[in-house]
Amino acid sequence: MYTHEFKKRVRYAETDKMGYLYYGHYAKYYEIGRVELIRSLGFRYRDFEDILGVKLPVVSLESRYLKPAYYDDLITIESTITSMPTKLISFDFKLINEKSEVINTAVVKLFFVDSATEKRVSCPSAFADKLATYF
Amino acid sequence: MYTHEFKKRVRYAETDKMGYLYYGHYAKYYEIGRVELIRSLGFRYRDFEDILGVKLPVVSLESRYLKPAYYDDLITIESTITSMPTKLISFDFKLINEKSEVINTAVVKLFFVDSATEKRVSCPSAFADKLATYF
Amino acid sequence: MYTHEFKKRVRYAETDKMGYLYYGHYAKYYEIGRVELIRSLGFRYRDFEDILGVKLPVVSLESRYLKPAYYDDLITIESTITSMPTKLISFDFKLINEKSEVINTAVVKLFFVDSATEKRVSCPSAFADKLATYF
Amino acid sequence: MYTHEFKKRVRYAETDKMGYLYYGHYAKYYEIGRVELIRSLGFRYRDFEDILGVKLPVVSLESRYLKPAYYDDLITIESTITSMPTKLISFDFKLINEKSEVINTAVVKLFFVDSATEKRVSCPSAFADKLATYF
Repeated sequence: MYTHEFKKRVRYAETDKMGYLYYGHYAKYYEIGRVELIRSLGFRYRDFEDILGVKLPVVSLESRYLKPAYYDDLITIESTITSMPTKLISFDFKLINEKSEVINTAVVKLFFVDSATEKRVSCPSAFADKLATYF
Repeated sequence: MYTHEFKKRVRYAETDKMGYLYYGHYAKYYEIGRVELIRSLGFRYRDFEDILGVKLPVVSLESRYLKPAYYDDLITIESTITSMPTKLISFDFKLINEKSEVINTAVVKLFFVDSATEKRVSCPSAFADKLATYF
Repeated sequence: MYTHEFKKRVRYAETDKMGYLYYGHYAKYYEIGRVELIRSLGFRYRDFEDILGVKLPVVSLESRYLKPAYYDDLITIESTITSMPTKLISFDFKLINEKSEVINTAVVKLFFVDSATEKRVSCPSAFADKLATYF
Repeated sequence: MYTHEFKKRVRYAETDKMGYLYYGHYAKYYEIGRVELIRSLGFRYRDFEDILGVKLPVVSLESRYLKPAYYDDLITIESTITSMPTKLISFDFKLINEKSEVINTAVVKLFFVDSATEKRVSCPSAFADKLATYF
């Protein structure tokens, strides 16, 4: 298992007329969570695309909204990989507010796709090797 | 059961560097789908807030991405209510491209919350009555 | 001079905690305005990219916010080309609410850039010819 | 004069199919720039709304796009107040990439509006006093 935390503040642009973080913006928080988890392993998401010729389209998203997030809240995005990726990589997320309340949980699954052939491929070893240390 | 279709074009603002409709923007398509379904019943989403003093925060979102959507695609958002709302209202969505391919399916659930008391309430009869005709 | 009108509704996703259409979303309205103006001429913005190998990065944006726009407002985007494009194309916008009030005016200028060479080029004749009828 | 710098990374959500930071997202960068400038003075933007009952709608935006920003670029947002605010506050922005190139400049002007009366008011002294030290 590998977990990484990253903090992001709720911006005015992301609020809605209820005064909440709009439900559609959470997906961006998950993006930031997984990209920063990857960076914390000494890899970069863009290396998948630019060096390895692999892209990672999202296959599924499941999100549960437990409490609202509000303007200017500093949200901790806790991102976890619970099992070694195969042709699919799965991220678990918890969003936590400054009162240490879990306000949202989510699971996002992505495929590895070869940009040239558009075929699904296995998780590149350049990344899998870095992750394997933690499993 | 009640189903409504609404068309929305994929805008440049919504694409990402893969050339796809970014996975985080689908939630906005579901919002548009459910709001236009409500309008088609002769009601307006804003009447919940402005007249009835009820807001509808999203409780959960499940989304499956089957095929990408591309810039300028005209997407049909098919929104369905399959059962009469109680304290919770559930919408099923299918997103369909111009080749009639289902590119995404989703389920979004929302609660009815009294804006003054912040307590969950039942679906207001002003809306339930309009919907009941179809069940 | 060539003018085109297109209507777009303000979505919940676009509101902010003031209850206004967030100032950063207007740029998307201008995008929609210019793309639909181009479509009304029997051309498509994507044809610039896909057929002519030309892209149109934005060079400058000037926007004046006169009145707020609110959730569910149906906004008329009035887009105008006042002079034949050269290496630069300039669009004037007026956003008008349902009370016929001008709520925003803007000017957006874009360059024509050859996607292969990344050099600025003149407005492609495939588009200029369609526009010339109106000048 | 008072200047503050804040860094923000370009996210996938913000790119478009050209691979650029979409022109409409820059406004959010300016929002972040001015909010963090205010925080650096020991004040918070939300205090205007929550404590002082004052909101700051944007009056005008002028933006010049000099070079593209790309996915994962770490952008420095340099925000400057060049003159003491009156009934209007003006921010100058420079966006700078990791090669120290200025990629965008902008000016954003906002009014102070009393939330209760919807009338324009002068810059609250609670904020003006903190800023005055630098003028």
